[in-house]
Amino acid sequence: MPSEFDLIARHFARPAPAGMLGVGDDCALFPVPAGRQVAASADLLLEGRHFLPDVDPRLLGHKALAVNLSDLAAMGAQPIGCLLSLALPRADEAWLAAFADGFHALAQAHGCPLLGGDTTRSAQGLAIGVTVFGAVDPAAALRRDAARPGDDVWVSGPLGAADAALNLLLGRWPADPARLAALRPALESPQPRVALGRALAGVAHAAIDISDGLLQDLGHVLAASGCGAVLREADLPAHPGLAGLAGGLVRRAVLGGGDVYELCFTAAPGRRDAVQAAARAAGGPPPARIGEIRAEPGLVVLDTQGRPLDDLPAGFDHFGAGG
Amino acid sequence: MPSEFDLIARHFARPAPAGMLGVGDDCALFPVPAGRQVAASADLLLEGRHFLPDVDPRLLGHKALAVNLSDLAAMGAQPIGCLLSLALPRADEAWLAAFADGFHALAQAHGCPLLGGDTTRSAQGLAIGVTVFGAVDPAAALRRDAARPGDDVWVSGPLGAADAALNLLLGRWPADPARLAALRPALESPQPRVALGRALAGVAHAAIDISDGLLQDLGHVLAASGCGAVLREADLPAHPGLAGLAGGLVRRAVLGGGDVYELCFTAAPGRRDAVQAAARAAGGPPPARIGEIRAEPGLVVLDTQGRPLDDLPAGFDHFGAGG
Repeated sequence: MPSEFDLIARHFARPAPAGMLGVGDDCALFPVPAGRQVAASADLLLEGRHFLPDVDPRLLGHKALAVNLSDLAAMGAQPIGCLLSLALPRADEAWLAAFADGFHALAQAHGCPLLGGDTTRSAQGLAIGVTVFGAVDPAAALRRDAARPGDDVWVSGPLGAADAALNLLLGRWPADPARLAALRPALESPQPRVALGRALAGVAHAAIDISDGLLQDLGHVLAASGCGAVLREADLPAHPGLAGLAGGLVRRAVLGGGDVYELCFTAAPGRRDAVQAAARAAGGPPPARIGEIRAEPGLVVLDTQGRPLDDLPAGFDHFGAGG
Repeated sequence: MPSEFDLIARHFARPAPAGMLGVGDDCALFPVPAGRQVAASADLLLEGRHFLPDVDPRLLGHKALAVNLSDLAAMGAQPIGCLLSLALPRADEAWLAAFADGFHALAQAHGCPLLGGDTTRSAQGLAIGVTVFGAVDPAAALRRDAARPGDDVWVSGPLGAADAALNLLLGRWPADPARLAALRPALESPQPRVALGRALAGVAHAAIDISDGLLQDLGHVLAASGCGAVLREADLPAHPGLAGLAGGLVRRAVLGGGDVYELCFTAAPGRRDAVQAAARAAGGPPPARIGEIRAEPGLVVLDTQGRPLDDLPAGFDHFGAGG
């Protein structure tokens, strides 16, 4: 049986960029540009909890890094590099090669080389730990506590697709292969909004990525910033793959569905042109202006008649009954 | 049931040091001193693989951070901060409080504040991901590829205790409560050699922490440096708690036993006084000079009669038969 070191060397090690020390020492080493701070985020993904056991390993490699790059995007940071820890139930070379390909392809696309990590055998299911590092001007960083009354609230792209795809995959909704085909890429290969986050640094005030659902994640911004918000349901960009579903299902997916990895951000009304210009420069879908920050606490969603919704879906709570 | 956010806030969040952004945003933010690079390392610890299910949570919190601080020590880096990801089978408040206490106490002792992380429910066992960041002058960093023929080989303290303690705890060796009491702290609350690593930066050449066993870890240094080594068994510092055990057991524990977290390092013979001075300045046990680096590849251990041992124990291989 190959040793862990053989496995790492064969499938994960790549030459580190000049000036960095990569896979194979006690620590990775990397420089940080002058005037920048390090932005760092770590996530732990578990089989059966964050992904299905039979997921395509190439897509899983992509997603494991994507969800972490999304945290850099939500801070407005430029990726520097990443670390990967894998706990594997078995040493399956084809699986590892495909996982590594998906991981490295996204890493290369975003200039975020793999610089180190750790591989062990797991007596339980597969566990994946990823840490990403980026560089950001601390004065321009998109912090959760930076929303101000009067700010517009924006989302960077369509909502609800990943939640709906998961409901279809798990059989919670009746089988609908055409719809699943349209929605599945959003669940399995999300595109982190790294370029948009960087373009918004210095333009927007607060930002967060929508990993737990719009209402819950915007709620974190409001709590950190000490303010409230009003959203207009009619302006929420539902993913086109949700068309034709019952209104209650769409509302739940759009307001409460997690695993989205679009950005929710706030910016002064005077920066609307700058926000649109940042989005165009970054590529990706046009952002949607969905409401306003206000001083009064609380999160209100107005229906198409301007009445507050009174049955807001809860976000994804890892320890709650809905999780 | 409390939400993950309540749990994090209650037991883990601490105010971040001035100039840093800590727990509660998409990323942690921290500055790096001018002229320094970031040293970063991540480890994933699994119940049943890296620790026993009934381990004292305070000791586990200590050890989860200690094994990562040991990687900073082996690089000669000064700790900056850390991230913690927890996948928990259940939300046990007393357990979390004790784990957090053990973690924070060691973090405070080494100036390595918890700056962020991630908590989720695990459908399997407990999983702990820790990432540490430090700062190091890249010209003085203790890299694995820096050993040179003629260097002395040193270890920073006694060997074999953790391996022997585990054999006693798991019933692989006959019960011996007095011996277990003497050996157990080395397994459950190792003290990372952070101060020594920093003092050796610029003095020593190569360093590694002994997580997988002296022979295997020194082997990594030799492979990276393209050289070999000769060790003298008589100079190997066996932990005093091994006294009275059969010679074969002691040899196996000292040469092959992992989970030690002492440093193995190399330095030019002209720096012996500087090495001793660094060790005194850092506190901790006196280092032992155990052999020499040579140009000829291979790792040879000479017995007390000067004959090469021909039955060297293998180190801990996570995917091998011994793992």
